[in-house]
Amino acid sequence: MAKSEDAALGLAGAANGLLGSGVARRRLLLAGGAGAGLLAATAAGTSAAADASTPQRVPGAPMSGYGQPAAAEDSVVREGIGSQPGTRGSGASRTPLQALRGTITPSGLHFERHHSGFPTIDPRQHRLLIHGATGRALAFDLEQLHRYPMVTRTQFLECSGNSAVLLRERPVAASCGVIHGLVSTSEWTGVPLSYLLDEAGVGAQARWVIAEGADAGRMNRSVPLAKCLDDAMVALYQNGERLRPENGYPMRLFLPGFEGNMSIKWLRRLELAPQPAMTRDETSKYTDLRPDGRAEGFTFAMGVKSVITSPSPGLALREHGVYQVTGLAWSGRGAIRRVELSADGGRSWVDAEFESTPAPLAQVRFRGAWRWQGQPALLVSRATDTAGRTQPTRGAWIASNGPNGFYHYNAMQQWQVRKDGTVVNSYGV
Amino acid sequence: MAKSEDAALGLAGAANGLLGSGVARRRLLLAGGAGAGLLAATAAGTSAAADASTPQRVPGAPMSGYGQPAAAEDSVVREGIGSQPGTRGSGASRTPLQALRGTITPSGLHFERHHSGFPTIDPRQHRLLIHGATGRALAFDLEQLHRYPMVTRTQFLECSGNSAVLLRERPVAASCGVIHGLVSTSEWTGVPLSYLLDEAGVGAQARWVIAEGADAGRMNRSVPLAKCLDDAMVALYQNGERLRPENGYPMRLFLPGFEGNMSIKWLRRLELAPQPAMTRDETSKYTDLRPDGRAEGFTFAMGVKSVITSPSPGLALREHGVYQVTGLAWSGRGAIRRVELSADGGRSWVDAEFESTPAPLAQVRFRGAWRWQGQPALLVSRATDTAGRTQPTRGAWIASNGPNGFYHYNAMQQWQVRKDGTVVNSYGV
Repeated sequence: MAKSEDAALGLAGAANGLLGSGVARRRLLLAGGAGAGLLAATAAGTSAAADASTPQRVPGAPMSGYGQPAAAEDSVVREGIGSQPGTRGSGASRTPLQALRGTITPSGLHFERHHSGFPTIDPRQHRLLIHGATGRALAFDLEQLHRYPMVTRTQFLECSGNSAVLLRERPVAASCGVIHGLVSTSEWTGVPLSYLLDEAGVGAQARWVIAEGADAGRMNRSVPLAKCLDDAMVALYQNGERLRPENGYPMRLFLPGFEGNMSIKWLRRLELAPQPAMTRDETSKYTDLRPDGRAEGFTFAMGVKSVITSPSPGLALREHGVYQVTGLAWSGRGAIRRVELSADGGRSWVDAEFESTPAPLAQVRFRGAWRWQGQPALLVSRATDTAGRTQPTRGAWIASNGPNGFYHYNAMQQWQVRKDGTVVNSYGV
Repeated sequence: MAKSEDAALGLAGAANGLLGSGVARRRLLLAGGAGAGLLAATAAGTSAAADASTPQRVPGAPMSGYGQPAAAEDSVVREGIGSQPGTRGSGASRTPLQALRGTITPSGLHFERHHSGFPTIDPRQHRLLIHGATGRALAFDLEQLHRYPMVTRTQFLECSGNSAVLLRERPVAASCGVIHGLVSTSEWTGVPLSYLLDEAGVGAQARWVIAEGADAGRMNRSVPLAKCLDDAMVALYQNGERLRPENGYPMRLFLPGFEGNMSIKWLRRLELAPQPAMTRDETSKYTDLRPDGRAEGFTFAMGVKSVITSPSPGLALREHGVYQVTGLAWSGRGAIRRVELSADGGRSWVDAEFESTPAPLAQVRFRGAWRWQGQPALLVSRATDTAGRTQPTRGAWIASNGPNGFYHYNAMQQWQVRKDGTVVNSYGV
């Protein structure tokens, strides 16, 4: 495309092909397509459409009780599945972020992080016990919980160890999902925990709530009472149906914005106490070790973060033309206010557009148009939340968190686009 | 509970147990529970919690590629599955609304309405052809569509024949899902159709777009061009992942608020034309027959509607106490502005609360507290949308639509609660 056409379309100032959001999208695509074959408006295309009519010649498949993804999508599964040596269920699986679009994670692809696998629980037998520094001890079964008002919120859950592989000296060759897929979004529905604590009566000395799961690892964490009286939920439904077994069936704690391991799955017990319990799971791990070797007590809220899901490793650019750079942004401290995109490793930035509506403690889908004409590029996204926090560079994160840092990694991710159109993980400054 | 306590709690004016939203919920529950065993704060409850620890004694199950619902939930499947005699795939299955909570429908439980079953389509071969009264004919494959900006919206899809069984002379004995489950909600993500039409160029004489599917029934409908240039979408993703095969994989038309059959699945062709095509599918059916026997051309937008999903047939009340009356409301002409509840067949009403945030052409979850002390009751919900339309009574609907009416039934649903706590479908005035 000639420079004068660029100017006419408002692209004169575009940085390495990134197009500002003020540019008319439709004409851009037309222009990009005309130059690069974006649209195959050809006789071949029309005849391919006729070929596609083959399915019209045979009766289709009948209705079913519970549908499954298309067979042609059977490569879209959770990734990076791995367990501690000698165990089957002490490990993780990750959401294949690069294969998804929108904001919801299908429940079958929600990331997993189990400490002793997921238990099989009889929902008729399961009880949630609330005791300790309360007016009275209470036990709730599922039917009783359904007698309370519920709330519905679409929010993310992120493992505090997500993306920590980027602390390695050299950038790992892996997909976006393997690197960043310990984060997922669901529509969670359940009973505000504050209602249940109100029924039990919160003792004057209560400051913490010790939550325990019914898994073999007895996963347990200390949660500040203030969070439990604020937006904490005993979640019973995920994306409209009962929780999936690997997400805490029949009930889990859900603490919006907090590191995922605190949203105790298979929730069986909440003990009110004046002090945190300093459990194994909040001392041997899930504690941030500072540069001086001291452990920082509790770091609950996940940081502001974003990642470009496409293009990303494994999704090669096959031809020159206009592409949509898209990804997800989220923060444990508010809503996402702004996402910026760079195609030159952060030297210049343009604002991304939102494809969905930003909401507190929720993921938002962002996008920006980018013209690729074979030039090498470094694609980066940078999110800012309503609390005014912006993602750091990798170097700044490491400088701030020191050599012992591991949890809560939220630096900007850079993808390198090579001349042949392949995309690889790469470190910026 | 004594009358004076009712007064203290603000219940003095409550109609047949329905509690106004101004009443403090927590104290209500405590009061209801104290009187009716709502909360089993007993030694038995505590020891049951100990029993629930059994899963803690064995290692759990490992991570998996694509998760499934809990085995204990295997009765939650699509309902009312039926085909035309002699066919396997010309029929419907329905969302089990009474088993769900929140607003999203899990993709595996989205209702189905196929005219010749669902085809198996090779996504690499499939093309969307846009032709007719356009500047040029275009064919888009999936990769090309991904080069366009997308939008993400959580909206409902409802079959125009939903709930028509309620036109029978006697109320059918069936679940909420069987009666009303031809409506589902998904997060839909795709390319605005207006962008694609812009690329093709809309001819001066174009007024309609004839959409055709790649199924054996070649389902096709005429869509007003204005809708296609407004909020119509070529949807590629449903709840974050690629469309399910029974929902149009690899692409479908999505027309927010319009009757479901127009959102053509397995979309293969869009033909711009000056006139509607008067296809088989919009003449032999999907046309509203008026009392005088004449057919009303096109009736696209679904009406304002609501249904109480719990309590509902099959979900019996097992003890006296406070229950949450909950359900879904939606409208094809805007957002839901108000939902009212009645426990006495519509003689008195209180406002319901929203458990989720109302949005245009989307379902909202509503709820109201209701104290049941064994009295017979007639539970009814009544929705009003931002266009100012309110659901009619069944009698008014029939009077307005006449004996030939069938599609777009949106009258108020009444559930009768009997003294033994069972719930049955029943007709009001």
